Amino acid sequence: MLRVSAYPLVEVDEAAALVLDHTPTMGVERVALAHCIGRVLAEDLSATASLPAFPSSAVDGYAVRSADAGKALRVLGESAAGRPFSGSVEPGTAARILTGGVLPDGADCVVMFEDVQLDSEVVTTPTNLREGSNFHRPGADVRAGEQVLTAGTQLGAAELGLAAALGFPRLPVFRRPRVALMSTGDELVEVGGKPGRGQIIDSNRWALLAALREVGAEVRGLGIGPDQSDALRTLVVDALREVDVLVTSGGVSVGTHDLVKPLLESLGTVHVGRVKLKPGKPFTFATLSDRKLGFGLPGFPVSSLVTFEVFVRPALRKMQGFAQLHRPTLPVRLAYDARATADRTEYQRVTLRREGQELVAESTGSQSSSRLMSLAGAHALVRIPPGDQGIKAGTVVEAMILALP
Amino acid sequence: MLRVSAYPLVEVDEAAALVLDHTPTMGVERVALAHCIGRVLAEDLSATASLPAFPSSAVDGYAVRSADAGKALRVLGESAAGRPFSGSVEPGTAARILTGGVLPDGADCVVMFEDVQLDSEVVTTPTNLREGSNFHRPGADVRAGEQVLTAGTQLGAAELGLAAALGFPRLPVFRRPRVALMSTGDELVEVGGKPGRGQIIDSNRWALLAALREVGAEVRGLGIGPDQSDALRTLVVDALREVDVLVTSGGVSVGTHDLVKPLLESLGTVHVGRVKLKPGKPFTFATLSDRKLGFGLPGFPVSSLVTFEVFVRPALRKMQGFAQLHRPTLPVRLAYDARATADRTEYQRVTLRREGQELVAESTGSQSSSRLMSLAGAHALVRIPPGDQGIKAGTVVEAMILALP
Repeated sequence: MLRVSAYPLVEVDEAAALVLDHTPTMGVERVALAHCIGRVLAEDLSATASLPAFPSSAVDGYAVRSADAGKALRVLGESAAGRPFSGSVEPGTAARILTGGVLPDGADCVVMFEDVQLDSEVVTTPTNLREGSNFHRPGADVRAGEQVLTAGTQLGAAELGLAAALGFPRLPVFRRPRVALMSTGDELVEVGGKPGRGQIIDSNRWALLAALREVGAEVRGLGIGPDQSDALRTLVVDALREVDVLVTSGGVSVGTHDLVKPLLESLGTVHVGRVKLKPGKPFTFATLSDRKLGFGLPGFPVSSLVTFEVFVRPALRKMQGFAQLHRPTLPVRLAYDARATADRTEYQRVTLRREGQELVAESTGSQSSSRLMSLAGAHALVRIPPGDQGIKAGTVVEAMILALP
Repeated sequence: MLRVSAYPLVEVDEAAALVLDHTPTMGVERVALAHCIGRVLAEDLSATASLPAFPSSAVDGYAVRSADAGKALRVLGESAAGRPFSGSVEPGTAARILTGGVLPDGADCVVMFEDVQLDSEVVTTPTNLREGSNFHRPGADVRAGEQVLTAGTQLGAAELGLAAALGFPRLPVFRRPRVALMSTGDELVEVGGKPGRGQIIDSNRWALLAALREVGAEVRGLGIGPDQSDALRTLVVDALREVDVLVTSGGVSVGTHDLVKPLLESLGTVHVGRVKLKPGKPFTFATLSDRKLGFGLPGFPVSSLVTFEVFVRPALRKMQGFAQLHRPTLPVRLAYDARATADRTEYQRVTLRREGQELVAESTGSQSSSRLMSLAGAHALVRIPPGDQGIKAGTVVEAMILALP
């Protein structure tokens, strides 16, 4: 027997808030720099030393006293990077200095090689020399004690370089959430197999694998789930011993053969069972024991990816301690009349192009929940409020940016 | 003895064009879907079959004939996803159908469960039924033979899902370039070690490791290079047997102890030895034997990352077959007076914030080439043409976007 879903239809924003409210942040681990790439810093980082630690030449040239401008100076020796000059630059003398070399005692500026005249070991400087020029003073880049990175920052190239320069071989980062990923559905065939009548190839697992990896999760693939509820339960209970999150696709609509909602009900508390969202109405969210999360995504490919974007991705970013949970948004001008759905908020997929200073959004074509082509190459999602109005072409709206053109 | 560099100062755009002109595209390999994430498709991909392959229900409900609108219909059986109904829907009958189920022969529409009245095995339909409603026709999402993905596309969630749905368990992708990464400089100490007077911790290798990984390279770390030219040469020649690209930082300014330029000269042809770029004037680019590339990046941390952005990243994207080699750009309004450098194009680091519909760019502070804080958290690079003009606050310029706020 078919039955009407027992779950109330929840507004999108309410469902998203419910998800985040129940999402914990992962613990912290101290990880070697090479493994910190893309991870999220768990504590504010302050400088334990100044950078540079010593007055450091910015150029190749001669370390001199600015008071000796215009004079012929005897060259005493050399200060190369890593090999400081041990003497002192007294009036009437100079030291050759290379980029990164320590400015010798006595000298107060560096004159560039191109700006001097050299005759044997005597160098003649220009008539105007400015004290402090062409070298970096200690602490000019970072002062000891200064906070240089904030908790919640994703560690990229500059951040890792900064941490290394300050002498941190390991950094405190949030653990990556471990996610068990499963597709459900009697109709599914593994890619590489030949679908019979009424069967389709499981594509959601690959799409969600990519989406999960992109957001930083460690994924344990559970394959296509069994279609007996006992076997399914055993598989999931077993997996939940080793993961923080369960993500399934399929099996959450109201049909008689859908096993995921009853499974999540039996394992914990279902907080969201239906959402006023298109695509993605059957989206299901549950908390399981030990603060673990269960996401039952719809089976249609676009529905599973859109609900991933709207609900799962922000949650996985919260788990990893990201300061910014959501996709950035930008104003875009609609190049098409966006029709609304009466009773559901709709996320339409668009491509963007530049017209003058503006970003212009064009529909990716049929927005059918099964049509992955509407999402492949999409630059943004445009949110259309429910109702009979829609949004007219020419209107500027705030779009969730997936990729810039 | 110091000497003036023998290399001409090359314009930034000319140097960038020289790099790309000499950059080959990698070969193609066929890779299992799980390993295709983030890779670049090497051939156009066309659908070998239609999607869906059969008329597929979009909802849970009853498959009926639209001519039977308003009638009481006998329910013959069920068409679930993966378990088609074997019979035919004749006039006066219906079949229960679940989302993803095959529309049975004879039926021409699906009526949603919520819209019928059910009495035992008799279902009464609404008085208005539209032929073709609530199911996806064969080929509605993808027509057999249709080109679905273009060579040069990076494979993300939707693209992988599409490939899987069409039955491709492996895809042709460009090989990832293998890059040997080395820092040079007598002054360098490994992170974790304690720098003596005049020494600094090697930070560039960590920053560049992150930058190289982000762009998709496989990195072989060579550590801090030896400061004897013979030992350095042996190390590099050995590494070049296994990699496609050599990236060094440091050792490319005009100082007497710089070994990288002579090394690159001895191993191939140096095309660029100095660039009219700030930061990054000493940037060096060479082609080596077997179409391999050598990049000598400057030693100052910001210089190494900016020259990576301007020259190395586009080259590594070309090697991987990316259709889009460069960072996207957006118009931003400068919130500060950007001073120009007389004889060099400058890339200033900025943060972005939204003001109304605009992106507003604020300087990250001192733009010293050693100050990584100018790059940590930067959202964009703003290019300032050489001269004495600079760009006034309030001007809208096109900025290279690193990350959106």
